[in-house]
Amino acid sequence: MNRFGNKFTLTTFGESHGVAVGGIIDGCPAGLELDFGAIDESLRRRRQGDGIAPSLITTRQETDRIEWLSGLLEGKTLGTPIAFLVRNNDINNDDYQEIKGLYRPGHADYTYQARYGTYDWRGGGRASARETVARVIAGEIARQCLVHNKMRDFTISAHAVKKGTIECTLQGVPAGIGNPIFAKLNATFAYAMMSIPSAIGFEIGAGFAGTSMSGEGWRDEWNKDASTQSNHCGGIQGGISNGMPITFRVAFHAPTTTPGIETKCLDETEHRLATITPSGRHDLDQTSRLPVIVEAMASLTLMDLVADI
Amino acid sequence: MNRFGNKFTLTTFGESHGVAVGGIIDGCPAGLELDFGAIDESLRRRRQGDGIAPSLITTRQETDRIEWLSGLLEGKTLGTPIAFLVRNNDINNDDYQEIKGLYRPGHADYTYQARYGTYDWRGGGRASARETVARVIAGEIARQCLVHNKMRDFTISAHAVKKGTIECTLQGVPAGIGNPIFAKLNATFAYAMMSIPSAIGFEIGAGFAGTSMSGEGWRDEWNKDASTQSNHCGGIQGGISNGMPITFRVAFHAPTTTPGIETKCLDETEHRLATITPSGRHDLDQTSRLPVIVEAMASLTLMDLVADI
Amino acid sequence: MNRFGNKFTLTTFGESHGVAVGGIIDGCPAGLELDFGAIDESLRRRRQGDGIAPSLITTRQETDRIEWLSGLLEGKTLGTPIAFLVRNNDINNDDYQEIKGLYRPGHADYTYQARYGTYDWRGGGRASARETVARVIAGEIARQCLVHNKMRDFTISAHAVKKGTIECTLQGVPAGIGNPIFAKLNATFAYAMMSIPSAIGFEIGAGFAGTSMSGEGWRDEWNKDASTQSNHCGGIQGGISNGMPITFRVAFHAPTTTPGIETKCLDETEHRLATITPSGRHDLDQTSRLPVIVEAMASLTLMDLVADI
Amino acid sequence: MNRFGNKFTLTTFGESHGVAVGGIIDGCPAGLELDFGAIDESLRRRRQGDGIAPSLITTRQETDRIEWLSGLLEGKTLGTPIAFLVRNNDINNDDYQEIKGLYRPGHADYTYQARYGTYDWRGGGRASARETVARVIAGEIARQCLVHNKMRDFTISAHAVKKGTIECTLQGVPAGIGNPIFAKLNATFAYAMMSIPSAIGFEIGAGFAGTSMSGEGWRDEWNKDASTQSNHCGGIQGGISNGMPITFRVAFHAPTTTPGIETKCLDETEHRLATITPSGRHDLDQTSRLPVIVEAMASLTLMDLVADI
Repeated sequence: MNRFGNKFTLTTFGESHGVAVGGIIDGCPAGLELDFGAIDESLRRRRQGDGIAPSLITTRQETDRIEWLSGLLEGKTLGTPIAFLVRNNDINNDDYQEIKGLYRPGHADYTYQARYGTYDWRGGGRASARETVARVIAGEIARQCLVHNKMRDFTISAHAVKKGTIECTLQGVPAGIGNPIFAKLNATFAYAMMSIPSAIGFEIGAGFAGTSMSGEGWRDEWNKDASTQSNHCGGIQGGISNGMPITFRVAFHAPTTTPGIETKCLDETEHRLATITPSGRHDLDQTSRLPVIVEAMASLTLMDLVADI
Repeated sequence: MNRFGNKFTLTTFGESHGVAVGGIIDGCPAGLELDFGAIDESLRRRRQGDGIAPSLITTRQETDRIEWLSGLLEGKTLGTPIAFLVRNNDINNDDYQEIKGLYRPGHADYTYQARYGTYDWRGGGRASARETVARVIAGEIARQCLVHNKMRDFTISAHAVKKGTIECTLQGVPAGIGNPIFAKLNATFAYAMMSIPSAIGFEIGAGFAGTSMSGEGWRDEWNKDASTQSNHCGGIQGGISNGMPITFRVAFHAPTTTPGIETKCLDETEHRLATITPSGRHDLDQTSRLPVIVEAMASLTLMDLVADI
Repeated sequence: MNRFGNKFTLTTFGESHGVAVGGIIDGCPAGLELDFGAIDESLRRRRQGDGIAPSLITTRQETDRIEWLSGLLEGKTLGTPIAFLVRNNDINNDDYQEIKGLYRPGHADYTYQARYGTYDWRGGGRASARETVARVIAGEIARQCLVHNKMRDFTISAHAVKKGTIECTLQGVPAGIGNPIFAKLNATFAYAMMSIPSAIGFEIGAGFAGTSMSGEGWRDEWNKDASTQSNHCGGIQGGISNGMPITFRVAFHAPTTTPGIETKCLDETEHRLATITPSGRHDLDQTSRLPVIVEAMASLTLMDLVADI
Repeated sequence: MNRFGNKFTLTTFGESHGVAVGGIIDGCPAGLELDFGAIDESLRRRRQGDGIAPSLITTRQETDRIEWLSGLLEGKTLGTPIAFLVRNNDINNDDYQEIKGLYRPGHADYTYQARYGTYDWRGGGRASARETVARVIAGEIARQCLVHNKMRDFTISAHAVKKGTIECTLQGVPAGIGNPIFAKLNATFAYAMMSIPSAIGFEIGAGFAGTSMSGEGWRDEWNKDASTQSNHCGGIQGGISNGMPITFRVAFHAPTTTPGIETKCLDETEHRLATITPSGRHDLDQTSRLPVIVEAMASLTLMDLVADI
């Protein structure tokens, strides 16, 4: 349940205020020379958001340093599992003593308690978006595998089309990728995107707007070279890519806790509501941090489908 | 790839103009007395659509008769695989000779060819919505398992909220169902729904409209009994149910081929477009036929999560 | 749990005295022209045993006739699921009324009851070796896929080396097939073989006799062409094939019920033992019927590893 | 492929001369208070072998110190992934420069090269038995889960019955555990055991000796309380436990490289054999180190079957 993929798999671990977050990539092709700089740049985008020049950032926060544990020899992949971790720094568990036992609204405290009979009250624990560090690292490695092993012209790019909604476009995906029936390529992208914290909607191609089109209006007419004149289907037909760009949009809700604004928590033991005022560090608007996560999950999805193992 | 689920699994087979469609359910609890009448009624809803009194239908079309092959003894489940089939009647493959080798727009002919190097040109073949017969049968069995083995108060209901968009509500699902991180309950529902033919969008709770809410506006405030005052999250927090009703919407595009309207197909061998005018039987507006398929996939999703195997 | 394989998968169904036994093959490559005669011959070997000329058999028993339900068009595979069934004929459930509720020694009646709270008392039900019909059909299709799509020189041959023990040799498997660590090729063969009814032991290469060799004696010394001078390892090193013939042996116990010999059954409800004298048709010595089943499971194992899906 | 299990899963990583070996356990029940001392003792048995009093050992070698990375809060499991690592100390890669590019007989150098196009020449790399460190840690956690969450009376014990052959007995396993058809309990144990480095054979209950028994001799006659008078089947019938002790034996070959004895390696690039004389540290007879690994894999197998996730 903490694993993504069947052939190129990522298994992640870590609580936001535990020792570290990280993961194991299993199924990475051997002989790939990793571009570590690009991986670090992905982590920076996740940490600082897009649209801000790196040089202008006061990097007061410590950077996420990756410790590579296995799967590499002399900078190249061995085909064996690639394990990595990023330690959690700046942790002060005392910050969270006041909310121990209180379920915040709009968070997963209560549902984890219902699921497991316990939960980690330290800053969101496993449910924190801190966990996406592992997704971003593995997603960038997946992207590198795609370009170097599978699809020379593959590019991926996500950006915000409005606050909270991210649009992602994949180019260079040949026709014939994906599966029919259940594991449709669109279904697999939907699964991957809806697994991102705060995701609340997914649409492909024309999406919800397409429901008001006639069938003749929606269908994409052929050109003679098997490309199409429009791309309402978003590059996927019957669960399989058709060679056109793949486009989808993902909706996210805004962060539900704002420092300084009163929050009514549930104290289940005493059947009462308790008001707290969250303190702590101010978060950047998450909109600008989401594109790299969307890209990572899309690359993982695609690489998993075309991996050879 | 033709299998849905991990514990309560459905593997389906069949082309629309082959011998039969059907499937194998593996992981069904033993000792369940199946309500065969309810299964037949689900098939009727799929065939004729909701909102039309069964008695008023001229059942010129032969009904879908299920042949049960295994897994049952004296009307009760054995815990062994339940295999079933429904034969394809009224097949006239000659109807399709004219489109053999022509890829229709808005269909999966071309992508299947790209994926497999061949495709079944007889009426959509494996990509036909005929395949959902097996989903509906298995989905109704999953629903019966949920009610009788797992969640006494479970109900599920889907209906069209506008042409093409179906809303589904599940009640009686206790808090604590689902998984965090990747296999989130919302992600799994998204996967299941986007696997339905013609699906192009999915949203949960407030969905895309929720992206314009503030975090404080979107979050659902607590009542003292752990219910919430609103349900913008659609009953799922952090990938796990919170005990409130689960609600989501699925967008579908309209049927892309209309009898009597000219359609330009791609003849890939000769690099040209060929115009055909589809004949054949008139299809009901599919909107009324989709709710039972949405319900079936939702029941399969939920039963798979709570099955014991 | 009724599924074998991950990429080229077989899901089976059927009780010995139900309507039919059969299965679904998912992941078969498209475009393969099946040799149906070879499939029927495999079923004949399973039914009549090796070593008896087919022409001399009085086929009083009805032959197993396969009904193909899907996945084929004009005799070639489509890449979609291949579903098939074989009906159970000559069934007389009255034969089994006397043993209803009695657990036979050496059979799975009791353990199925413990597992499921019910069991099929009609002739072994799901636990009957009748279920291997589906394995043999799918195994022969897997073998044809191996030869035509993957390994031109692949051959497989199993035979009895003494009553009860079957030896199997696979030739033409190139070096580099299989996986390290858990899903080792030898481990996967062991899993497949121990899943055959009555299997009680598995050994590869020198096997148990190899435990008394020194390390230097056991290891296979190189020739310059990367073949080895001996083959104590049975063609697999570190879980991966080395290009030498793969050889293993499987031990089976004899049939535990003999017609005419008194058998003490457990009547659990009444906490007593009940003596019955089984009647019914005489079974051939199963030794001669096992090789084709061993070959089938080996072909399924290997094809699953090299399938592309 | 580096993952064991479906519900209680272990994914391992690490090369023998890389940074560390370790793994992620996913699916461990929440709320379990781990006995860390017992885990360390398991590692000591793996390192030093059974039958030698710990106090008499000169622990010149550094002990394996476990770094716990996630999944634990205040000593108890959270239900989230438990990640851990053990660093590789005393590494001197220069020791291995002379065998770089030479495939040793009886090792996996050549087959890894054939599988991946590369291999780690440093002391066996991923194929080294060093990898079993992760199995032993996770196996002991699985055993603790079984005793505390599932089977109060569960015990497991393995020991050498002759050089190379290990016998394992599990007691306190109730009837009804396991699966029929493919994922039979005996098949799953066989898979687990044959995945241990150097394993070459597996047999259950009477095993290979059982092939010379008649069916009536082999079958275990009932007592009135559903126990049996003998246990030739090794506690499993039809793939499912029957409540009797489960017993099986695993055959292993001896270590294939002995320090000081000449070894002819294959130099594939130059199509010649090269003679080396391995130096390095003397290994204990591995027989005494295998029981804890056999126990670990058996506990992992059983816990995976009964886990609730």
